[in-house]
Amino acid sequence: MIKPRTMPGVMELLPRDQIAFQRMLDVIRRNYERFGFLPVETPVMELSDVLLTKTGGETERQVYFVQSTGALEKGGEGLPELAMRFDLTVPLARYVAQYEHELAFPFKRYQMQRVYRGERAQRGRFREFYQCDIDVIGKDTLGLRFDAEIPAVIHAVFSDLDIGPFTIQINNRKLMRGFFEGQGVADGEQQMLVLREVDKLDKRGPEAVFETLTGPDFGLADEVVRAIMDFVAIRSSGLADGLARLDVLGGGSASFEEGVAELREVLSLVQAFGVPDDAVAINLSIARGLDYYTGTVYETTLDEYPQIGSICSGGRYDNLAENYTKSHLPGVGISIGLTRLFWQLREAGIVSTAESTVKALVALMDDARVEDSLALAQQLRAAGINTEVQLEPKKLAKQFQYADRAGIRFVVLSGEDEAARGVVTVKDLRRGEQFEVGRGELGGALKVELEQARVMHVE
Amino acid sequence: MIKPRTMPGVMELLPRDQIAFQRMLDVIRRNYERFGFLPVETPVMELSDVLLTKTGGETERQVYFVQSTGALEKGGEGLPELAMRFDLTVPLARYVAQYEHELAFPFKRYQMQRVYRGERAQRGRFREFYQCDIDVIGKDTLGLRFDAEIPAVIHAVFSDLDIGPFTIQINNRKLMRGFFEGQGVADGEQQMLVLREVDKLDKRGPEAVFETLTGPDFGLADEVVRAIMDFVAIRSSGLADGLARLDVLGGGSASFEEGVAELREVLSLVQAFGVPDDAVAINLSIARGLDYYTGTVYETTLDEYPQIGSICSGGRYDNLAENYTKSHLPGVGISIGLTRLFWQLREAGIVSTAESTVKALVALMDDARVEDSLALAQQLRAAGINTEVQLEPKKLAKQFQYADRAGIRFVVLSGEDEAARGVVTVKDLRRGEQFEVGRGELGGALKVELEQARVMHVE
Repeated sequence: MIKPRTMPGVMELLPRDQIAFQRMLDVIRRNYERFGFLPVETPVMELSDVLLTKTGGETERQVYFVQSTGALEKGGEGLPELAMRFDLTVPLARYVAQYEHELAFPFKRYQMQRVYRGERAQRGRFREFYQCDIDVIGKDTLGLRFDAEIPAVIHAVFSDLDIGPFTIQINNRKLMRGFFEGQGVADGEQQMLVLREVDKLDKRGPEAVFETLTGPDFGLADEVVRAIMDFVAIRSSGLADGLARLDVLGGGSASFEEGVAELREVLSLVQAFGVPDDAVAINLSIARGLDYYTGTVYETTLDEYPQIGSICSGGRYDNLAENYTKSHLPGVGISIGLTRLFWQLREAGIVSTAESTVKALVALMDDARVEDSLALAQQLRAAGINTEVQLEPKKLAKQFQYADRAGIRFVVLSGEDEAARGVVTVKDLRRGEQFEVGRGELGGALKVELEQARVMHVE
Repeated sequence: MIKPRTMPGVMELLPRDQIAFQRMLDVIRRNYERFGFLPVETPVMELSDVLLTKTGGETERQVYFVQSTGALEKGGEGLPELAMRFDLTVPLARYVAQYEHELAFPFKRYQMQRVYRGERAQRGRFREFYQCDIDVIGKDTLGLRFDAEIPAVIHAVFSDLDIGPFTIQINNRKLMRGFFEGQGVADGEQQMLVLREVDKLDKRGPEAVFETLTGPDFGLADEVVRAIMDFVAIRSSGLADGLARLDVLGGGSASFEEGVAELREVLSLVQAFGVPDDAVAINLSIARGLDYYTGTVYETTLDEYPQIGSICSGGRYDNLAENYTKSHLPGVGISIGLTRLFWQLREAGIVSTAESTVKALVALMDDARVEDSLALAQQLRAAGINTEVQLEPKKLAKQFQYADRAGIRFVVLSGEDEAARGVVTVKDLRRGEQFEVGRGELGGALKVELEQARVMHVE
């Protein structure tokens, strides 16, 4: 006998939690599609030489390699031929380069699949997790308007997910780089290191970060560090305030002014995309650890749960697929790490176990009447109502108990008495009410009730 | 520069094919949910000792093993710790055993995920493919009514998929075993071998199979082989014919008579579940290669494409999770191998590239009017219509060409003239028509058109 268990670092859910998770996936997908993004799925395994174009580094150390039984027995030198994707960006780059001549550009794709990282096992860290990505890829060029469309998608997704107020925070890497250059921190790598320290502001506090940056590792002058810390503390609320804060930044290097102009243009357009004025804020501290982004960068935070950190991040990059094609493919995109987000929302008590996908249970009052139950179930299903039938004899109280625990809203009862009168009895477990309805009207009646619930967002 | 390519044996789709595939997934899921099955997802990797409880055999040779970079460097004896699932049945067994005390039985679950097999690369064989499974798992017992519900689900799924007429074929392993015992083929293993030969009837023809079974490998008497071949040739059409054919089989061993009784009961109930009389047929040749099934077995074939073989198969089994728990967990289930099915349907020309998920493109007639486009797009999206906006200046002819190639049905035009008159022009590329509509009515008007298309099944 083998103990049934999963590997550490994966999230496996009981059905009612899976339903809640699936609803979030559906909401995200619906909104991605609403904005015209097209679905792509890629294989979970890629050829190692394709996946690992950059050797070394932390990322490679976290890669899972795959070998069939045959390959394993043969042994062999070097890395295994296959590896599992660790994000959806490298597969996107490979996909766009591979099908370049069959795709229309700008290419807007969404991809919602699991990715794999051999992380150290740790609470809230996952080795398998969903990423829900959108990207717009241009050929040669991609206008700034696409940078302004991204917040509209973020806003639609998180409004629809209904997990509380949130703020979409924007920065621009050119602006940031230009500012650092103006402070004499001209070296790209040092900028990255300073930014990494600055990224720790929330965790370590301003004093500790100040000490590090003026200390032996960085050796920056006090006033430079103060200027940097003032700069990264800049936040805006609303469009007018945002533009005003950009105005007072003054001039700087070419990169700085280009960044300011881009940020200004993006901010100004966002409202035309239907995003409310107060949903987007400038946050000049956003660096997005990666070397990858070159212009606009995004983070989104829940106003009431700042400790959760960014729930949706991304930005603009210069060239998606330089390892696979000579074509110049600039892009802009975001990613939602849904497994981690779901876990955090559950920990914070923001999402709870969902009502079942099953809406009605046709009870079995008398075993001889099972065909009657099946006829009622058919009627309900034809009306679009997910229906389970009690197929085996069981005490009625147990049937109710089951429906209640399973999160099934309606229990449909049809005994001899009801049959004689041409009606069925419906128990609405959510409202704690009971009503009778004509047999022929059952499907329609429950459909109306469910539609009301949907509209009223109680579901 | 690295050549962008996927590993052999995977199916990767361009967006419009992905849309067609996703629609099939959605239809299957909707119907599984309609019958009260609950969603489960399991990690793609399982611990090797959990996954590979039975050692040896073809299955294990096809397993993909997984190692993180760290584990790979360490080396080590024996099999790697992790392996990728090769079906959804073993993960289900592990899941049910692991959460036994938190699940309600009978447990009805659906699972639609990819599985992995290190198959020899071959046209139409996949190393990564979707399985779409349902199973009902009982605790201690599970009534035959659940066997009769399965054809109702199959019927709902394939009617809704709309890929042509199909027949659900049923057999019973007890009946088959009993019959073989009556013919003096009493040994279970020899029965399996004979069945395997019989399974080749369609491929090799009756004469070749007859020769093999009377030949040195099996050494069966001519009349025994004739009896077997007559038996497996039995097919029914409709319920009355099916019951009649069972009647003339006469008596036999206990197993035989139990099987006949079960098949009779399942057949008799199927109609009450809403399955038309002619959709289910007895086919006494169905063996389902596996040792696994113990009662009812199912195969489903497309009437006009018999060469595709079974598109949905499964059956009843005695005990799901004997390797993980002492609890007795009988079950019944089916599986649709969607990746292979999709590939075959495409090869046969039955499914074609779908219309886009994007329903409307708001054209850009004048770059200065982009905010007007954005306002129209917002209106369309609010009406539930997936909408793309032409964000960058481009010749109008090119915009139409793009919409046409991308499978977008409506192009929305709003120039100065339209704006002055408070209308927009809509080009319906599917119907080749053009019409004007008041600005405020745009969303509603297109919604009605799309709803009509949906109801008329032209979509």
